[in-house]
Amino acid sequence: MKPETLKRILKDLHDGSIGPEEAFRSIKHLPYENMEFARVDHHRAVRSGLPEVIYCQGKTPKQILAILRSLKKSGHNLLATKLLPETFQKIKKELPGKAEYNLEARTLVIRQKTRQKKEGLIVVVSAGTSDIPVALEAAVTAETFGSRVETVFDVGVAGIHRLIDNLDRLREARVVVAVAGMDGALASVVGGLLEQPVSAIPTSVGYGASFGGVAALLTMLNSCASGIAVVNIDNGFGAGCLAHKINLLAGPKASV
Amino acid sequence: MKPETLKRILKDLHDGSIGPEEAFRSIKHLPYENMEFARVDHHRAVRSGLPEVIYCQGKTPKQILAILRSLKKSGHNLLATKLLPETFQKIKKELPGKAEYNLEARTLVIRQKTRQKKEGLIVVVSAGTSDIPVALEAAVTAETFGSRVETVFDVGVAGIHRLIDNLDRLREARVVVAVAGMDGALASVVGGLLEQPVSAIPTSVGYGASFGGVAALLTMLNSCASGIAVVNIDNGFGAGCLAHKINLLAGPKASV
Amino acid sequence: MKPETLKRILKDLHDGSIGPEEAFRSIKHLPYENMEFARVDHHRAVRSGLPEVIYCQGKTPKQILAILRSLKKSGHNLLATKLLPETFQKIKKELPGKAEYNLEARTLVIRQKTRQKKEGLIVVVSAGTSDIPVALEAAVTAETFGSRVETVFDVGVAGIHRLIDNLDRLREARVVVAVAGMDGALASVVGGLLEQPVSAIPTSVGYGASFGGVAALLTMLNSCASGIAVVNIDNGFGAGCLAHKINLLAGPKASV
Amino acid sequence: MKPETLKRILKDLHDGSIGPEEAFRSIKHLPYENMEFARVDHHRAVRSGLPEVIYCQGKTPKQILAILRSLKKSGHNLLATKLLPETFQKIKKELPGKAEYNLEARTLVIRQKTRQKKEGLIVVVSAGTSDIPVALEAAVTAETFGSRVETVFDVGVAGIHRLIDNLDRLREARVVVAVAGMDGALASVVGGLLEQPVSAIPTSVGYGASFGGVAALLTMLNSCASGIAVVNIDNGFGAGCLAHKINLLAGPKASV
Amino acid sequence: MKPETLKRILKDLHDGSIGPEEAFRSIKHLPYENMEFARVDHHRAVRSGLPEVIYCQGKTPKQILAILRSLKKSGHNLLATKLLPETFQKIKKELPGKAEYNLEARTLVIRQKTRQKKEGLIVVVSAGTSDIPVALEAAVTAETFGSRVETVFDVGVAGIHRLIDNLDRLREARVVVAVAGMDGALASVVGGLLEQPVSAIPTSVGYGASFGGVAALLTMLNSCASGIAVVNIDNGFGAGCLAHKINLLAGPKASV
Amino acid sequence: MKPETLKRILKDLHDGSIGPEEAFRSIKHLPYENMEFARVDHHRAVRSGLPEVIYCQGKTPKQILAILRSLKKSGHNLLATKLLPETFQKIKKELPGKAEYNLEARTLVIRQKTRQKKEGLIVVVSAGTSDIPVALEAAVTAETFGSRVETVFDVGVAGIHRLIDNLDRLREARVVVAVAGMDGALASVVGGLLEQPVSAIPTSVGYGASFGGVAALLTMLNSCASGIAVVNIDNGFGAGCLAHKINLLAGPKASV
Amino acid sequence: MKPETLKRILKDLHDGSIGPEEAFRSIKHLPYENMEFARVDHHRAVRSGLPEVIYCQGKTPKQILAILRSLKKSGHNLLATKLLPETFQKIKKELPGKAEYNLEARTLVIRQKTRQKKEGLIVVVSAGTSDIPVALEAAVTAETFGSRVETVFDVGVAGIHRLIDNLDRLREARVVVAVAGMDGALASVVGGLLEQPVSAIPTSVGYGASFGGVAALLTMLNSCASGIAVVNIDNGFGAGCLAHKINLLAGPKASV
Amino acid sequence: MKPETLKRILKDLHDGSIGPEEAFRSIKHLPYENMEFARVDHHRAVRSGLPEVIYCQGKTPKQILAILRSLKKSGHNLLATKLLPETFQKIKKELPGKAEYNLEARTLVIRQKTRQKKEGLIVVVSAGTSDIPVALEAAVTAETFGSRVETVFDVGVAGIHRLIDNLDRLREARVVVAVAGMDGALASVVGGLLEQPVSAIPTSVGYGASFGGVAALLTMLNSCASGIAVVNIDNGFGAGCLAHKINLLAGPKASV
Repeated sequence: MKPETLKRILKDLHDGSIGPEEAFRSIKHLPYENMEFARVDHHRAVRSGLPEVIYCQGKTPKQILAILRSLKKSGHNLLATKLLPETFQKIKKELPGKAEYNLEARTLVIRQKTRQKKEGLIVVVSAGTSDIPVALEAAVTAETFGSRVETVFDVGVAGIHRLIDNLDRLREARVVVAVAGMDGALASVVGGLLEQPVSAIPTSVGYGASFGGVAALLTMLNSCASGIAVVNIDNGFGAGCLAHKINLLAGPKASV
Repeated sequence: MKPETLKRILKDLHDGSIGPEEAFRSIKHLPYENMEFARVDHHRAVRSGLPEVIYCQGKTPKQILAILRSLKKSGHNLLATKLLPETFQKIKKELPGKAEYNLEARTLVIRQKTRQKKEGLIVVVSAGTSDIPVALEAAVTAETFGSRVETVFDVGVAGIHRLIDNLDRLREARVVVAVAGMDGALASVVGGLLEQPVSAIPTSVGYGASFGGVAALLTMLNSCASGIAVVNIDNGFGAGCLAHKINLLAGPKASV
Repeated sequence: MKPETLKRILKDLHDGSIGPEEAFRSIKHLPYENMEFARVDHHRAVRSGLPEVIYCQGKTPKQILAILRSLKKSGHNLLATKLLPETFQKIKKELPGKAEYNLEARTLVIRQKTRQKKEGLIVVVSAGTSDIPVALEAAVTAETFGSRVETVFDVGVAGIHRLIDNLDRLREARVVVAVAGMDGALASVVGGLLEQPVSAIPTSVGYGASFGGVAALLTMLNSCASGIAVVNIDNGFGAGCLAHKINLLAGPKASV
Repeated sequence: MKPETLKRILKDLHDGSIGPEEAFRSIKHLPYENMEFARVDHHRAVRSGLPEVIYCQGKTPKQILAILRSLKKSGHNLLATKLLPETFQKIKKELPGKAEYNLEARTLVIRQKTRQKKEGLIVVVSAGTSDIPVALEAAVTAETFGSRVETVFDVGVAGIHRLIDNLDRLREARVVVAVAGMDGALASVVGGLLEQPVSAIPTSVGYGASFGGVAALLTMLNSCASGIAVVNIDNGFGAGCLAHKINLLAGPKASV
Repeated sequence: MKPETLKRILKDLHDGSIGPEEAFRSIKHLPYENMEFARVDHHRAVRSGLPEVIYCQGKTPKQILAILRSLKKSGHNLLATKLLPETFQKIKKELPGKAEYNLEARTLVIRQKTRQKKEGLIVVVSAGTSDIPVALEAAVTAETFGSRVETVFDVGVAGIHRLIDNLDRLREARVVVAVAGMDGALASVVGGLLEQPVSAIPTSVGYGASFGGVAALLTMLNSCASGIAVVNIDNGFGAGCLAHKINLLAGPKASV
Repeated sequence: MKPETLKRILKDLHDGSIGPEEAFRSIKHLPYENMEFARVDHHRAVRSGLPEVIYCQGKTPKQILAILRSLKKSGHNLLATKLLPETFQKIKKELPGKAEYNLEARTLVIRQKTRQKKEGLIVVVSAGTSDIPVALEAAVTAETFGSRVETVFDVGVAGIHRLIDNLDRLREARVVVAVAGMDGALASVVGGLLEQPVSAIPTSVGYGASFGGVAALLTMLNSCASGIAVVNIDNGFGAGCLAHKINLLAGPKASV
Repeated sequence: MKPETLKRILKDLHDGSIGPEEAFRSIKHLPYENMEFARVDHHRAVRSGLPEVIYCQGKTPKQILAILRSLKKSGHNLLATKLLPETFQKIKKELPGKAEYNLEARTLVIRQKTRQKKEGLIVVVSAGTSDIPVALEAAVTAETFGSRVETVFDVGVAGIHRLIDNLDRLREARVVVAVAGMDGALASVVGGLLEQPVSAIPTSVGYGASFGGVAALLTMLNSCASGIAVVNIDNGFGAGCLAHKINLLAGPKASV
Repeated sequence: MKPETLKRILKDLHDGSIGPEEAFRSIKHLPYENMEFARVDHHRAVRSGLPEVIYCQGKTPKQILAILRSLKKSGHNLLATKLLPETFQKIKKELPGKAEYNLEARTLVIRQKTRQKKEGLIVVVSAGTSDIPVALEAAVTAETFGSRVETVFDVGVAGIHRLIDNLDRLREARVVVAVAGMDGALASVVGGLLEQPVSAIPTSVGYGASFGGVAALLTMLNSCASGIAVVNIDNGFGAGCLAHKINLLAGPKASV
């Protein structure tokens, strides 16, 4: 709750337009819906105008549907992540709106707002073909939130000319999301070549001593290039969200 | 064996009411039933009046049934934890009593005592919807042991107003059980807001660098808030048991 | 801030006894003192009546002194933990009161209240001689907070008769604090023999695969005995604090 | 090298204004100075207008001085990080300019440009007093690069009203840098309360199972709040640099 | 090859009873059978008189059968470990002899020698019911090798009177094999109570921070009791083999 | 791109035989084919004359087929690794050429060049039968690239005479590839007995504290024998590739 | 306490030769001396006739002296391990008897019994020169306990002929103690060559990925050779103790 | 021992030119010098013509001197690694020959052979200035063994044009040694740009989540570029030795 809101409530109280009990309730209850198994946070939507998001892992189909219905009231676009294809099959007929399900990214988008022209470019680059699902989760997230997104896949450092060939596109971006498993070296090279903030996602792609993405995570955390923002392994949503927030900050007309 | 018991046996012996061999057997054998694959500890029930518990993971349906039957003799309520639905299906017809199976918590309760009015409140809070199964294991455990239990789900720190909105209920508790996966930050925040002991359960909810609950476990062990009692990852039973023991200590009429 | 306080402030405002600006300031600022490098939390003292505590690791002598002086205003006993002997030497002449420095526990106590008769016993047991410093930190903490504390040292499971010989004392306690490094097995054995809550502290005592206390920590987290409350490695303060909170809950007249 | 540069060189060559050998040299050598033990990257300064930075750990006093002298030619402000006090004492008389050494942050700044009025606020918050050195490294970095920086120390979640009391200042920032050791929960709570990007620095403050900052690192990577950009443990420079780059992106006149 | 053998070969050569080529071949080739995918080590059997053993994990049914047939030529008892039930079903009709398959231990024994009266007792104790499979692998191994073996299951330290009640049996053993998962504390307690060598097997029984047996492994390696011989997690074969070797050393008539 | 190529392009431009736009394109685009989900690196084939390789893990059957077809244009032999049998079944009818699928090694080879007589021997030794799949991946890789390869399986150090019996064959090799799981000691012993470079592959064979190959990996990294080149766990391809590169370096006529 | 003792006490009580209170005390108190900071376990000495041992790490010079004096009463030889040279200097004048301090092994022996002729050989082998201190701790321990001990140093597997040259001596031993850091492969090779039990000690010798002995520890736990008994990293005492216990079991006249 | 030697000895024996005892001794004892604390392996020198090497860590000055003197007899160049400056000061007057001590690399070379013209280039590249000591250890090793070595320092991927500017020199090498701490990405980029074998050394340079070189080690093991040979953290000797062996294989006249 912003101080101004509090001040206004107190002023209303002082003026007598509201009573103390009403003031107390206003202050105490920020908006959310209590569904017992979940407390849907409408406050975030009110505050930021961003679409609501539901993280599906560990939730039953029933719970997912109930939360989506509750979220729908906000009028914003809805995004569900880590939604398995088999779960999607179970719920798709009961979804509260027209669904766009991305099989690779495992994302579900339900649009309630018409697409507006997007400004401010985010480029998502992946080191390999196997990193594409995570890269797409980041791309879908940022795009659903309202950023313009382009993707460049399979430009890992083992054949560095493929990356350099795409540098022009990367330089046009406000933020670059670099997605890599195995050695995770893409983030360092991208970070060394660009001035923009780089959001780095380690993926669980690899085997043996990649330890499910730990190798790539450590590479990125220890990057010699400065200005690398690391998120959790396979966390496409987090990186997409961060990239969008930075893009938003730059404003609709900013140019780098 | 308590010293008084030993003294009494020795006294009986001195008085001649029992012979040395009988005394030796009394001293040596505390009560338990040897079933070869398990030695059911009746002594614990005698001592504490708590219901008997069977941890089902790694046990065959046959073993579970045999132990339940042996435990039944104590006359106490019976609790089985980590009981998979498929195992429950296999044994449910042969159970020695009316079963209450909680599908989410994977607990089985067989009541042999009528429910008495419970005193002393334990509140179980969970950070997310996916943490509910572990939270319910804690709740069922403490409730079966005899505590009064309430639950508050999905009040993680990403939308901290949901937690603050429920602070009044938490403040009424003698002990709070805080259940969280991913960043596990709920325990620190609850511990900072309350004076009561907090029993913290890290859950394996999360992915990537959550390492199956290790991230949440470390967060809780390193909590800046003091008085946080940590248990093993996903150990709802342990936290429920601890909370009940503390509640018991406060006595039926204690008020905080 | 408790709801009643908020309601009262709002009521005062409604009645006109205070103006909105004043109400705003009352609501917004809970008591703490801003010293730039530290914000001393007077609210905790107001709330709980417990002595203030300062964790000295990573703080300069100057900072420690300044915080102690600020804390003194509360009128409560003061406790400083992890205070190195060399730091104590530097500040001892400027301390705001008569200091009790425990060289082994590395604790400093400044008493502002006369000792009252304490009720409710906490017993701190250690597995070895090398675990004594951590055990003493727990003991000093609980004692300074107001609990009655006894210690039993060097009763590790390698010579289990030493522990069994002291069982009577342990059974008199409301809470037992079990302190062990190396294999950390003491907590499991104590937890199996007693009904009371056990607060378990793994210590960094050991070498090689003890990994600075990790072995003992894992042992305690995986204890087969139920009702074990684990704290961080070497965290004597945390366990002492937890034990005191549980003791407090049992009330001045409770008996187990 | 930007494509335009390449095109221009090629065009000059085509026009005959330069010969092939000269073109080859232009293409091949981007500006850096080879000092055998170091290759000072003047290209970065040319490209971004940011001050040059030298990471001092593992370098001899001689090497540090030589690199500083080489860097000086760029005309930019110079920043040296992780510079130990004893090393600073050894080199301070030979420094190529007026030095500002921050004993806590272990940073050295040599200014070659007059301070201009800075726009765009970055707020650095720390959980505890012991986290201040890392927080200051971030603050000095961003400030030297040209951002406006404010600091708020010791607002960890164990006394959450201290953080909430400072929310207004945090809300004014374009980017918030959250610095915390031990449980690292500050980042999650700040991330949950604010809409801005949060750059999170885990610190090595703590003991036992904090594992030199690993606990805080994992907490931050697994944060339930979205949009958290994590950097390496104790990497104040990295977070300051990232925050500045984001700030820069928002432009001199942007307002959030 | 023993020195005497070498000397004899060389003497034969010197005497002219064999030629240099023949001597070279004798020296170079110790007996084993090359099956391309495996080189069956008949030398071990010749040397020690122990039955041959085949570790089945990672081998195809075909390979297992072929190796068993090759091993059979030794005339010794055959032991196969970690043999999955489904693999046993596939090969059981083609086995070269009468098979004793232990479903819990996943061991297969094919006896080629009549059972002789065994001397020297090994007692295998397990902490819980879930540890029985590993305990049985140890028991079957030592028994097949020729030791007398008894088992005592479910005597973990959470109900320590069950262990103490069986101390007499344990004291009769030459070697005790202690099998425990979770906290692994059984080995320390047994090692503290007995004078004999204790072979300790950590099992993967447990969940969460047991890390597949790592917790129990570390407990055992850090045991305060001396004379604990630790083997790999779930390595019933290794411990059984070690116990038998020690038993063998004590000779058929030794008594402790 | 080699400097000579660049110089020549620049010279052509200077001479007027090509225009600046054409020169720019020549310089900027090294050959690769953009298939959106993959950028097939034809440059590598041009450069080294080695067959193209596709790592199949994490790729869909469709993607694998498309890449194989693109790679085919190079005219080189094609190698696919980590190709599951079920995936092979799906694609085998549509493969662009005659396939040699190795079920154990999970490799697919499509030959486009007639086999030439190979020179320079690589010997691949494995410690156990279960290590054969990884050993075969290395062997197939080096053989497809053009080296002569022999294999010696099941010569682990537990029966060291089997290894010593094969020393003559190992001594004939230019490079030895040593493959071992569990304790990984084979690499140290081979490295101690031979003068040649040894490429060591740890495998995930083992259980318990082998941690999926970490134990063998650490053994090999810490080998007391010098000149051991370690690759990732189960990385048969990497070791085969390395061995071939070294073999290539020695030239067609080199003899050790 | 042995059952016979208990039976006798109870019989005395039954016969009236002792009263119940006296019997109770006899049963309850096994012999140990309570020094507050330590409880010296005289029971172990009574039981086993082995010398008393004091582990010095983490104990003050004062504590060490006091314990040694208490231990002296047993009349056995005394052994102190992990005793730093500087601590030895501080206490050497006040030692209760003639001290033999081994600077490399960091052991102190005070003999109270004349050396008797020892039977049953233990051979301690070390991989490198740097492993000697740990090897000596094992040797001193077993020798002080009463075993005959020989040492063979620097026979690591990188030059395996040095080990093979000493095989005859190893084959004479009842037990072999194998000591190795770095890759720890010595234990596997020794275990593969010998029939006797092998007690393996990983040492912290090494750097980088040896992780303070973890690499050698894992190698030994995963040894392909059977019958390897592993102890903690650098635990010379534990291995020496284990070897002696096994030797003892074989009896004074046993021959392998 | 090579088969030919064995055959010759056996033939001599057959011919009667030597007796069986003499033959036995010849076969059994390969040349090494037993100094009790070390067994100096003269066999290696005989076999390979490489200089003898002594790893100084964990050895006393006395031991180092004695081994150097023993090694000197071989007539080869001597190399000592990881020799601390303070140890060098202690022994430098007694060294058996003219010493070249490299303070950064911590290597000592004593030449007994005149330098011959070297053929076959090895290039050692380091990512940063702090990696130079490890890079120099590799360079000194390979150079002392007889390879021609060049070094290129501070060409990490954060400013990739510095690396590309030196590609020509790297392409002339037979083997490249890539040395990097922190993110270790240099090895991947070098491996992607070159056809030659790359020997990669992770260094312990870095802080926080670099975990003493583990991050760089994992990066290198997971490199997407093929043909990367990884050695232990900071193991300059191992990589230099490996590079020299590969160089040797290519022969004095080989050209890539």
